[in-house]
Amino acid sequence: MSSPSPRRYAIIGTGAIGGFYGGCLQRAGIDTHFLLHSDYNQVRQQGLRVDSIDGDFVLSQVNAYDQVAAMPPVDVVIVALKTTQNALLSTLLPPLLASNPAVVLLQNGLDIESALADLVPPERIFAGLCFICANKIGPGHIRHLDYGEVVLGAYSPQGQPQGISPTLEQIAADFRQAQIPVKLTPDLLMTRWRKLVWNIPFNSLSVVLDATTDQMMANPHSRALAESLMTEVVTAANTLAQTLSPNQDRALPETLIATMLNQTAGMKPYRTSMKIDYDEGRPLEVEAILGNPLRAAQRAGIPTPQIQMLYQQVAFLNQRQAAQQP
Amino acid sequence: MSSPSPRRYAIIGTGAIGGFYGGCLQRAGIDTHFLLHSDYNQVRQQGLRVDSIDGDFVLSQVNAYDQVAAMPPVDVVIVALKTTQNALLSTLLPPLLASNPAVVLLQNGLDIESALADLVPPERIFAGLCFICANKIGPGHIRHLDYGEVVLGAYSPQGQPQGISPTLEQIAADFRQAQIPVKLTPDLLMTRWRKLVWNIPFNSLSVVLDATTDQMMANPHSRALAESLMTEVVTAANTLAQTLSPNQDRALPETLIATMLNQTAGMKPYRTSMKIDYDEGRPLEVEAILGNPLRAAQRAGIPTPQIQMLYQQVAFLNQRQAAQQP
Repeated sequence: MSSPSPRRYAIIGTGAIGGFYGGCLQRAGIDTHFLLHSDYNQVRQQGLRVDSIDGDFVLSQVNAYDQVAAMPPVDVVIVALKTTQNALLSTLLPPLLASNPAVVLLQNGLDIESALADLVPPERIFAGLCFICANKIGPGHIRHLDYGEVVLGAYSPQGQPQGISPTLEQIAADFRQAQIPVKLTPDLLMTRWRKLVWNIPFNSLSVVLDATTDQMMANPHSRALAESLMTEVVTAANTLAQTLSPNQDRALPETLIATMLNQTAGMKPYRTSMKIDYDEGRPLEVEAILGNPLRAAQRAGIPTPQIQMLYQQVAFLNQRQAAQQP
Repeated sequence: MSSPSPRRYAIIGTGAIGGFYGGCLQRAGIDTHFLLHSDYNQVRQQGLRVDSIDGDFVLSQVNAYDQVAAMPPVDVVIVALKTTQNALLSTLLPPLLASNPAVVLLQNGLDIESALADLVPPERIFAGLCFICANKIGPGHIRHLDYGEVVLGAYSPQGQPQGISPTLEQIAADFRQAQIPVKLTPDLLMTRWRKLVWNIPFNSLSVVLDATTDQMMANPHSRALAESLMTEVVTAANTLAQTLSPNQDRALPETLIATMLNQTAGMKPYRTSMKIDYDEGRPLEVEAILGNPLRAAQRAGIPTPQIQMLYQQVAFLNQRQAAQQP
């Protein structure tokens, strides 16, 4: 076995994503430090517990913090908050930035990185798209249900392909050491859009229609609607990429929609992350998943009437639920 | 007081609409005959009870039937079924047609009259759009909450304006005698579309978003969505009318959407009829309100991406609910 990574990690937000991937890093002997909020006392005393289809594990002792000021300098900051909490980053990140760490956002959606624009130099901003089913089922207790791959890429403020830098390779090596399946993308923007091709219809419709993936795939109306929405997303993504880089072929593959629909039809009945958030009374990632892609398309003059309608529906439900919170 | 109308009426379907308007006709001394199904025994024995904002009334004895074969020849047949029951008309109507009655559909939506195409000569087909809030709250017991106007017009298989015929005038006179506010339209098709400008967004979104009219109007996202849907409906209606009659100005007024939105904002919080159907586990009028207008627009090549999405959403919910019925 190789010796553990010399890099030190901070995990900002120890929910399903931060707890699982951070837990994997620590399990591999990598020096990992967890920022916690509501679970701080539990995790400081009892550690982290991960029930995983790939094998359960318990970390009886973890480096737990309830404030960033107490955390040591690190080489890599993993941001695993929900995007709805990204307004906190302007407070949470600065104490960690003196050592010029790489900052990796494990977050879905578009234009997420702009939350870091005034804090982190663009060449130190990275992101990972997590293809995983995992939930937090109790304080410091994560359940990993399926999948787990992370696709890592480098941020470009202009939305250009950035290729694969040495830093990205190092982070990927650490993840692989931690048994996390990793792919690297030279074109983070299009990887984000590719994930949106699934997330925009299925996350949103699962909330609007109160439905699981199998219900949406079984009914011809909802399946056709998902396909129609996917087509709008692919068209928006490809048109935007063409606008940003007229001489590059960054188009999503033509087979993408059919492949995704087949995979979704073959999945176990699945409640999307947005539906879980909705059912739990948590704020929905409506701007990251819907609002930002919509506005990007609108700025470029690309018609997206169905994405717009979905955004308006989810925004209505999100705001009504927020207003009903005690 | 004038003497009662010499015309005899049959009411097919004695729910909120048939019970209220048929009750008003009988109260005015007009010879009215009611076809009932589940409420037959109750109404035959106890009559009809109408709690109305315009004054409660009880008809302790009504001509109640549980089969059309027992009904006498009539001059006017009022069809007050839900459009989801219109497949029954090919069985229900023929025994009543020997006397060549006028048939008046008190039903919303588009292309409803085609259900009568093989049964009734087109010049004997009429329709009324009912602007009323009324529910059946028990067997033979109707509650009339607000409004009540009926807009009557004559059917044209080609969708042309038919003007106002003497028969239409007679029916209108009978309705007025029964204290029912009536308007006549020379252009039934556009009157149907005008009602759809409201019904398509508000009926459908009330089901999809589980919302009352006041909630939809108060939230900027749902209000903007309603307006955007209304715009699609108006565009479809006007384009279709232009196609059907290039030399006539049948366009809906430009102020219609703003006027309707203002009226809706000023209404008491209102649960739409489609929402009530959904909450009661009844089939939704998804084809009359959404599917037929959508297909009419599609046949004419008019883009209606948001109406299509709404149709798919409501059809999904309708089919799921039907599948869950015991």
